[in-house]
Amino acid sequence: MTELTLETARRAIAATFDEGRAQGLRPLSAIVIDAGGHPLAFERQDGASPGRFVIAHGKAYGAVMLGMPGGAMMARAEDQPYFMAAINGAFGGAVVPVPGGILIVDGDRVLGALGVTGDTSDNDAAAGMAGLKAAGLEGKA
Amino acid sequence: MTELTLETARRAIAATFDEGRAQGLRPLSAIVIDAGGHPLAFERQDGASPGRFVIAHGKAYGAVMLGMPGGAMMARAEDQPYFMAAINGAFGGAVVPVPGGILIVDGDRVLGALGVTGDTSDNDAAAGMAGLKAAGLEGKA
Amino acid sequence: MTELTLETARRAIAATFDEGRAQGLRPLSAIVIDAGGHPLAFERQDGASPGRFVIAHGKAYGAVMLGMPGGAMMARAEDQPYFMAAINGAFGGAVVPVPGGILIVDGDRVLGALGVTGDTSDNDAAAGMAGLKAAGLEGKA
Amino acid sequence: MTELTLETARRAIAATFDEGRAQGLRPLSAIVIDAGGHPLAFERQDGASPGRFVIAHGKAYGAVMLGMPGGAMMARAEDQPYFMAAINGAFGGAVVPVPGGILIVDGDRVLGALGVTGDTSDNDAAAGMAGLKAAGLEGKA
Repeated sequence: MTELTLETARRAIAATFDEGRAQGLRPLSAIVIDAGGHPLAFERQDGASPGRFVIAHGKAYGAVMLGMPGGAMMARAEDQPYFMAAINGAFGGAVVPVPGGILIVDGDRVLGALGVTGDTSDNDAAAGMAGLKAAGLEGKA
Repeated sequence: MTELTLETARRAIAATFDEGRAQGLRPLSAIVIDAGGHPLAFERQDGASPGRFVIAHGKAYGAVMLGMPGGAMMARAEDQPYFMAAINGAFGGAVVPVPGGILIVDGDRVLGALGVTGDTSDNDAAAGMAGLKAAGLEGKA
Repeated sequence: MTELTLETARRAIAATFDEGRAQGLRPLSAIVIDAGGHPLAFERQDGASPGRFVIAHGKAYGAVMLGMPGGAMMARAEDQPYFMAAINGAFGGAVVPVPGGILIVDGDRVLGALGVTGDTSDNDAAAGMAGLKAAGLEGKA
Repeated sequence: MTELTLETARRAIAATFDEGRAQGLRPLSAIVIDAGGHPLAFERQDGASPGRFVIAHGKAYGAVMLGMPGGAMMARAEDQPYFMAAINGAFGGAVVPVPGGILIVDGDRVLGALGVTGDTSDNDAAAGMAGLKAAGLEGKA
């Protein structure tokens, strides 16, 4: 059974950054949170703006708390903006419903989430998916 | 290497107000925050409404935390209103995504931001840009 | 009738900093807020820690909202800690009940408050009282 | 001039964990924040309780915002409990005033802080000081 350890989290973040460099993305920040929504590891690349923890966290936290990756959260936000605004309020503002919030799963089981921010939301998500794959983890973006 | 000191901040605010007077703008308020988003100096001209600190701060704070000046924040808010609403929640409500939030930069390095409010957002931004120039600082609006 | 203008606020802050320098105090930060508790002017001296706006504001804001200068707030906090904790909660955390929160008065009328922070609370208050006097204002510490 | 980079932060955290293992401490969590109080890197060792990000952050954040390491914050909290309670409120609850919040300095200049939690506060602080030293950084606990 796959478990989310600090070592795995660290590898996923490192591989996400490798992919960002390979694709020429702007400086990235990435967080791995556990199945309870709590931070395991976070890194912010030099040159990223100071608010990146909050955004990375918001993407990952929303994914875990709603059981819905960033793409699905964004679709819901576009469909029912008032719903996602209310969800944001209900979770103390800590939900950012756009791509880059990636569920880390083992089949049906949610292990946690990876949150990536720094470039466009789609590029953030693509880098994160590559990072999870390189770390031997399965992601849902 | 340019540094943001209290003396520089004070000069930028004074020159912003000078420009406002020269252009016949309504009473302005202006804040300078550092690269971590923390206030260095703030002034509210007589006749301005009492909530102006919060607005000036929100413009400057958003610019620093997202690494994105007011014009870019507004474009994103118009494109994806639910995203900027969520960002605002994630930063405790302290982001005001309109022109008048001006990044103070030294080439690629962000030194802080100037937030200006009181007239139209575009006039606020123009006064702030003139103020930064007069103080020998480079701005991105 | 004395009025609190931006010009007066700026003079009070400058004179507070002059007194701090004369007394060899650590870098100070000072805010002047109006009778509604809203910022008129703030300055943070180079070398002060980034959180000084929040502390200076909390001293001045508590003084205006409770109609009680820092010395009286501290006496009450020492006498009834649970009361001041509750007050802090009721005002969203924005009350710091120690010396350095100085009411600016004209006889019985409260014009606003000066908040000073950076050295010991007593030194903060002494510098602020000297600053108000130099600016032609009457303070209650 | 020493700068706090992601690479340095990562080394400080790794060396803090090495020291924890060498001393037989319980699983540690450690964060490095920059001079504006914003997260650069965080890691939580396997087996640590889920709330450790919040505690590590609170120690480091308090140190930076007040310009005061954990030992000094604790002394102030013991001397004036109502003051530290109010400060905590003013900073949105995000200050944890005990050892383990270590200022990272370059002479007089604050570069950021390291926050360590998981064992006793004193052991947390000792591991963090060893970690900073191994990473070539100067700490004030």
